Amino acid sequence: MDTMRLSKAFTLIEPGPVVLVTTRDGHKNNIMTISWTMVMDFTPVFAITTGPWNHSYKALQESRECVLAIPTVDLIDKVIGIGTCSGADTDKFEKFKLNPVKGKHVKAPLIEECLANIECKVADVIEKHGIVVLEGLSAWFDDVRKEKRTLHAVGDGTFIADGRKLDRRNMMLSKLPPGV
Amino acid sequence: MDTMRLSKAFTLIEPGPVVLVTTRDGHKNNIMTISWTMVMDFTPVFAITTGPWNHSYKALQESRECVLAIPTVDLIDKVIGIGTCSGADTDKFEKFKLNPVKGKHVKAPLIEECLANIECKVADVIEKHGIVVLEGLSAWFDDVRKEKRTLHAVGDGTFIADGRKLDRRNMMLSKLPPGV
Repeated sequence: MDTMRLSKAFTLIEPGPVVLVTTRDGHKNNIMTISWTMVMDFTPVFAITTGPWNHSYKALQESRECVLAIPTVDLIDKVIGIGTCSGADTDKFEKFKLNPVKGKHVKAPLIEECLANIECKVADVIEKHGIVVLEGLSAWFDDVRKEKRTLHAVGDGTFIADGRKLDRRNMMLSKLPPGV
Repeated sequence: MDTMRLSKAFTLIEPGPVVLVTTRDGHKNNIMTISWTMVMDFTPVFAITTGPWNHSYKALQESRECVLAIPTVDLIDKVIGIGTCSGADTDKFEKFKLNPVKGKHVKAPLIEECLANIECKVADVIEKHGIVVLEGLSAWFDDVRKEKRTLHAVGDGTFIADGRKLDRRNMMLSKLPPGV
């Protein structure tokens, strides 16, 4: 997995893929599956919506850091498995045979099997709404992996894989941030 | 366009499609294109991130309502056109030949050509972050239209169309909210 330009990291989240969020609570790694995510800026700043019912929430609040990992369609059953058990009684890296890799900025691990990883620090928690605002610190991308299609959770138990790519760079030039 | 169950409306936003947001500032309809959106609850509650640089922001703040309209891939060039001009000097419904349709709850119009529309009221504005929290009031879906693939903005001028659908309802049963 190689580093990618941080100014492009928002392009990993903007198309709305299912995201895996890793945390480390001091001595234990954990992962949760989330699709309630949002880009908030190009810098990059992201939001996720979660709450105390998630075992990861406490680690997020206390460690003030996490990794957003982007899985691909071949990982769908691991993604769902991670989302339907709890880190309270499960070592999810072990159970789902995922390899935690050390990043550069945070103690939460990258997931080696994912297409991309974004190391983040918690910039703000808006408790009223369960919104956690994250600031990206560095981004990683696995250019070697063949399967690059991400997954989109519909929310009813079905998922949509990325389909055809449409290029409209020319029409969008006036709106693209520098470095993208 | 028929009504759809409000409890399913979050399934329109959760997979991360590009969204058109319509507003009405008292006497003029407007539309903006946005892909900085997030589901926050099943009830449904959504967030969008925007700010005063958007002409629609004032209408959102003052009228406290909007419609989230979901376009499909055949509308890509209108979606980009809407996102690259301003309602300050353009009647976007007229320019892009879109038909504003009266909803049930809000004065902002539905867009007849879109796959789905969600009438929303503004529940909260978190000015520090430019986050507008929206509560869905009713949802509409065009079951007759053939093209149902939505669009995902990557953010670099390329877009991804919905691809293959993967059904994992059985694995997800424990996590699905009632009525979905």
